[in-house]
Amino acid sequence: MRKDLVKNVPENVPENIPENMIENVREKSPYIHCITNYVTVNDCANILLACGASPIMADDVNEVEDITSICNALVINTGTLNERTISSMIKAGQKANALKHPIILDPVGAGASKLRTETVERLLREIKFDVIRGNASEIKCISKGVASTKGVDADQADYITEDNIASTVAAAKALSERTGAIIAITGAIDIVADASRAYVIRNGNTMMSRITGTGCMLTAVIGAMCAANLENLLEATATGVSMMGICGEIALQKLQETDGGTASFRIHLIDHMSKINTATMNKFMKIELV
Amino acid sequence: MRKDLVKNVPENVPENIPENMIENVREKSPYIHCITNYVTVNDCANILLACGASPIMADDVNEVEDITSICNALVINTGTLNERTISSMIKAGQKANALKHPIILDPVGAGASKLRTETVERLLREIKFDVIRGNASEIKCISKGVASTKGVDADQADYITEDNIASTVAAAKALSERTGAIIAITGAIDIVADASRAYVIRNGNTMMSRITGTGCMLTAVIGAMCAANLENLLEATATGVSMMGICGEIALQKLQETDGGTASFRIHLIDHMSKINTATMNKFMKIELV
Amino acid sequence: MRKDLVKNVPENVPENIPENMIENVREKSPYIHCITNYVTVNDCANILLACGASPIMADDVNEVEDITSICNALVINTGTLNERTISSMIKAGQKANALKHPIILDPVGAGASKLRTETVERLLREIKFDVIRGNASEIKCISKGVASTKGVDADQADYITEDNIASTVAAAKALSERTGAIIAITGAIDIVADASRAYVIRNGNTMMSRITGTGCMLTAVIGAMCAANLENLLEATATGVSMMGICGEIALQKLQETDGGTASFRIHLIDHMSKINTATMNKFMKIELV
Repeated sequence: MRKDLVKNVPENVPENIPENMIENVREKSPYIHCITNYVTVNDCANILLACGASPIMADDVNEVEDITSICNALVINTGTLNERTISSMIKAGQKANALKHPIILDPVGAGASKLRTETVERLLREIKFDVIRGNASEIKCISKGVASTKGVDADQADYITEDNIASTVAAAKALSERTGAIIAITGAIDIVADASRAYVIRNGNTMMSRITGTGCMLTAVIGAMCAANLENLLEATATGVSMMGICGEIALQKLQETDGGTASFRIHLIDHMSKINTATMNKFMKIELV
Repeated sequence: MRKDLVKNVPENVPENIPENMIENVREKSPYIHCITNYVTVNDCANILLACGASPIMADDVNEVEDITSICNALVINTGTLNERTISSMIKAGQKANALKHPIILDPVGAGASKLRTETVERLLREIKFDVIRGNASEIKCISKGVASTKGVDADQADYITEDNIASTVAAAKALSERTGAIIAITGAIDIVADASRAYVIRNGNTMMSRITGTGCMLTAVIGAMCAANLENLLEATATGVSMMGICGEIALQKLQETDGGTASFRIHLIDHMSKINTATMNKFMKIELV
Repeated sequence: MRKDLVKNVPENVPENIPENMIENVREKSPYIHCITNYVTVNDCANILLACGASPIMADDVNEVEDITSICNALVINTGTLNERTISSMIKAGQKANALKHPIILDPVGAGASKLRTETVERLLREIKFDVIRGNASEIKCISKGVASTKGVDADQADYITEDNIASTVAAAKALSERTGAIIAITGAIDIVADASRAYVIRNGNTMMSRITGTGCMLTAVIGAMCAANLENLLEATATGVSMMGICGEIALQKLQETDGGTASFRIHLIDHMSKINTATMNKFMKIELV
């Protein structure tokens, strides 16, 4: 067990989270195939490189099988989807399933339009996902078929708070049971659950919602973490969520020192992803197994 | 009247410009549906977040009505347009018209190709716009059917100068009369006019033309300003134009202090949009009603 | 000859490289039509503006001929290609050929999928390119029809090293002979060759591969350099490659002073492209004619 072996592991990191998950990404440089939206695609590519992975963006139906075959994980993001890319998502997903690559779904805007809701439902029918990461409204939409999303943001009524953690964890576990995917619900408090266990994470800050792409970037990073830590997908996902939050915390501190605004915050966030390591993680992780 | 009520309003801000237009954006967080180009879409999303609004980018014909329905304004930008997105623009525009949402048009490159010129003409026939913002050549193309655009930049022959302000104001008023839209012509000097009144704005600097997306970002910001200030669309537009110019002025000052280049300028520009308020506006606005 | 005329030319710059190639870009402001991928398109537009050119991104088959006609060079990049844009590339390329505009090909991911390999082959059959710039694996794929690309990065087995420079130069010259295009192979060491001459360039650093878009940006910059220096395409290309490397070197120095990460590096890189001039080039160029 970790605590027995490593003297400097702080009390706040649960012992079943392995060390060196980020170092594994840097060492293995996994290739991550992303079929994603054109709003945040550059940020996703850059944060994947920052954490040590190699991004490949490709969405034509005639090449997605080839591309997925040379990669180690697939990330599907439904922002700015369209008829053409939906077919590509299905085809890439089925190929990645056949190859047993981890597949991560970011159901951006599920609930905001009939097209998005139905596409996410179709993706869940035709592809077996390893992780689904969304905000509270997107996950609720998948979970209950209720469309409460305010666009691509979570509806305030759905926010995770100290008061509804228990019920949200229960809902996440139930959804994981039904889909077979790890469920990551992110917001002020984050929950990462499989059917039997759940991590509650309290890293990050509200500044992260004042730039576009934090969620998309996190999903991409989870793809990298899973590709490099295949034996521990739940811990890889939870650690990825915490890591992104920690980068946000360090970025905010840097921002306050330099008197910058939201654009500088984005730069600092990616900067710190390119520098983070297990030592920093151990220092800042706020994560508990519930 | 403003000057009667508020002691610290400087002489340079016309009294018919209401206070707190930017604070209204931050308070109401309007959702802005953007059908825009893939070159500057990330900048548009980030500057909308910086000024307090929430961006939603969606361009598939099967979801644009749903998305526009949950938003407060629609921004249509013709950069990198294609067959697929043109239909989406029409459909979204007609839905937004039915819902009486403000609709802003950025006719990027009108005059640079037959496709762009004809698409802009079609958009103007099938959608009632509230604001049209372009450079001098794009607006001239709409106004006179003359295609003098040098690509996506204004032709030097069309630049607004101290010598042609009067005639440009007259042309803007005439185009507003014909289209029913507020006309915003931006360049070294900016003009924002409806059929009867015009503001001349002298904020900003040439550094703003050394990065891509300043125009696109401004159009998005005008969408946010209009959505949050429905009673004063002319003033919301003029204030948005001035505000963007002021952010450029502060960004340039910051740049000179730090010895940066064009990429840093873009970061500072968005940074300052995330911090600007009415007090700063009152200090720097160079705007007159003509 | 240059060394006879100009006293301060350092020994390290070959005499057949003209001075002021970058100043020519800033003076002529050439319009560069880019049909490129949506991952790095914003960086390409911004670096073109930074070096003094004007970018126009347009990929609809119904406007590419119009757009190319008002431009001075065409850049085709096969990242994120799809059925729709392939037709546009062919049409734009043939028009640019007819107009005798320089055309630059960036065969992103050639070898990574059948679609990319076949599309690059088709582009080479139907368009006469002036410059082809890729990493070692992409160029090898074109040269030998061998698909060894690891996604969009070069396969380590293909890296240019001190040991294989001679054979790589020979292969580049042979490919140039066959295609009629200048061949630019970039990596730790860069080679720029036509059928009879080759430059070996040793500027740049590994940090440049830790952000997305360095290659795409370089290809765009080569388009600008060629458009403004039509009489010296080989030297324009070699100088462009060296210039990008030098910006990377200055950016890294700046980064170390400020303790930044990969996102800051990207900002510094573009910043320094907006400031570079022949004097700086002369100081830092590491280039030899072999």
